[in-house]
Amino acid sequence: MNTIELKAPYLVFLGDAEDLIMAKVAKGIAHWRPEKCLAQMRLPEAKAKLDLPDMTPQQASDAGAKTFVLGLAPIGGTLPTEWIAILIEAMEAGLDIASGLHQKLADIPELVEASKRTGQKLLDVRVPKGDMVCGTGLPRSGKRLLAVGTDCCVGKMFTTLAIHQEMIKQGMKATFRATGQTGILIEGSGVPVDAVVSDFIAGMVEQLSPSNEPDHWDVIEGQGALGHPAYAGVSLGLLHGSQADVIIVCHEAGREQMDLMEGYPVPDLQYVIDMNIMMGKLTNPNIKLGGISLNTSNLSEDEALTTIAHLEKRFGVPVVDPVRTGVKPIVDRLETYDA
Amino acid sequence: MNTIELKAPYLVFLGDAEDLIMAKVAKGIAHWRPEKCLAQMRLPEAKAKLDLPDMTPQQASDAGAKTFVLGLAPIGGTLPTEWIAILIEAMEAGLDIASGLHQKLADIPELVEASKRTGQKLLDVRVPKGDMVCGTGLPRSGKRLLAVGTDCCVGKMFTTLAIHQEMIKQGMKATFRATGQTGILIEGSGVPVDAVVSDFIAGMVEQLSPSNEPDHWDVIEGQGALGHPAYAGVSLGLLHGSQADVIIVCHEAGREQMDLMEGYPVPDLQYVIDMNIMMGKLTNPNIKLGGISLNTSNLSEDEALTTIAHLEKRFGVPVVDPVRTGVKPIVDRLETYDA
Repeated sequence: MNTIELKAPYLVFLGDAEDLIMAKVAKGIAHWRPEKCLAQMRLPEAKAKLDLPDMTPQQASDAGAKTFVLGLAPIGGTLPTEWIAILIEAMEAGLDIASGLHQKLADIPELVEASKRTGQKLLDVRVPKGDMVCGTGLPRSGKRLLAVGTDCCVGKMFTTLAIHQEMIKQGMKATFRATGQTGILIEGSGVPVDAVVSDFIAGMVEQLSPSNEPDHWDVIEGQGALGHPAYAGVSLGLLHGSQADVIIVCHEAGREQMDLMEGYPVPDLQYVIDMNIMMGKLTNPNIKLGGISLNTSNLSEDEALTTIAHLEKRFGVPVVDPVRTGVKPIVDRLETYDA
Repeated sequence: MNTIELKAPYLVFLGDAEDLIMAKVAKGIAHWRPEKCLAQMRLPEAKAKLDLPDMTPQQASDAGAKTFVLGLAPIGGTLPTEWIAILIEAMEAGLDIASGLHQKLADIPELVEASKRTGQKLLDVRVPKGDMVCGTGLPRSGKRLLAVGTDCCVGKMFTTLAIHQEMIKQGMKATFRATGQTGILIEGSGVPVDAVVSDFIAGMVEQLSPSNEPDHWDVIEGQGALGHPAYAGVSLGLLHGSQADVIIVCHEAGREQMDLMEGYPVPDLQYVIDMNIMMGKLTNPNIKLGGISLNTSNLSEDEALTTIAHLEKRFGVPVVDPVRTGVKPIVDRLETYDA
């Protein structure tokens, strides 16, 4: 197995988070995978809370929890030293530890020692696991949907989680395939593709979304953007490896400059669509645009609906805001595509 | 510094190589950088030889050599155990060790111990060095030429080494920028981009080809191919990070199937040109096709010259075979491009 796998259910750790923005990983897991969340653990100073019972590691373990998930990103991405004892306590109670922090659990000697002593795993979800493999480009059975973006941070993860949820609701066969640390912690499995050595991106995405039943959908979280000057290589490997049947273009309404990229305007939607279709055809000649997912949080309701209607007319595909309208129109349209 | 740097001159090790195909790294260094080669070292059973004096590590060190370069790729990419003593002897004589083998020198405890004891470096040129950085996309002064391919193994390294050599011959300011292990061993510096974590490809290529004098050319070795189902992510990061002013498309005449890629024909030259120009425009809107480098080793002289003439007419740029015709027409044409 080259995918990272977390055992459920979880004890979700909120640390000293002041709110659920600081604990956005915890919030995401509780929102998208409530069935995997057994309990929360909060430090006395925490103000953030989830709708879950509070438990200690031992209580959670006794109740069946398998993994202690760090549900927040402390400033700087390092683990506060005073939390080390908590993580050791969790391992001693029989829980694995999962973390998406920049600082690796495996680089903290006390945790490594406790892991060896207790037999519990340290799961750094930013670190790719298993043998790296090169892409083959060989076709696989089953269908695949990939989120692509006009920029980073435009809602690709949210869009694919929502599409997956809608598919399940409609009784379709579907699996969410996480490609980033937050997605992996939410789903409990995945491959952190931006941390994969560049020779192996496409190959690892092939492994992440293997052959499946003809009517099964892999809903693959996107990363970066093909038009991004720093990260396009990641996005292209993901596009080629996923052999997407359908792409959903994600965009934030009103964003004009690329995030943190001086001198780079957000490219036009038509350009982003054309570029992804052209490049994606290499490994799947039948790749199609399946819809546009628009983050309209900066717009009023009227503006949002007008913009959505305008884009639907312009591109001839369903246009949604996953939060405002839901993604049902995109999923409904998928049935019209041939396998 | 994020580039790997080898100190010259070298003692080039040919091991037990039967011929210069087995010792192609050694052959490449001696051909392209003869001024860096002080001597060769050959085992008694070696049949391959370079036009260099034979020396022991101690003799080479006494004569001024700084680095012992493994000039061959043993089958399987691992270091024969009987060579470990030779490498230790070389370090004891005051030489660093440079290797492009898959097996890392740094994973062989005896070598690590000897390195610590002697203070000589183990340089695994497949391992990226220094802090990894993300791309900025910011423009840099100076000019850059990048080799791109219709497939892997079509002569990108040879083409760029030849273009760099011709530039120097013509008195131009130019630096060869190596991006793969053989190129790094030949040039003595570079970044192994296919071993860089995918988030950092573009950024590391920016570092490899920094701002320079306005009339200075960085001649950047290409990797993979934008139309390759396994490695296109590497090629795109390289294209974006290099901000190429000029691309040279490399192709092997007559190759119809991509190397090792079942079901993938070699794409048409026009498609490869269009794709690279379109994607490259993101970080350099003035990117141009500067020529085509054709490996015609499978063709007769007549066939080769006819094919070259045909492609020149079709694409309106210089078409060369670096071996058969030399690359002068490409370099001569570069002067007509604006900075």
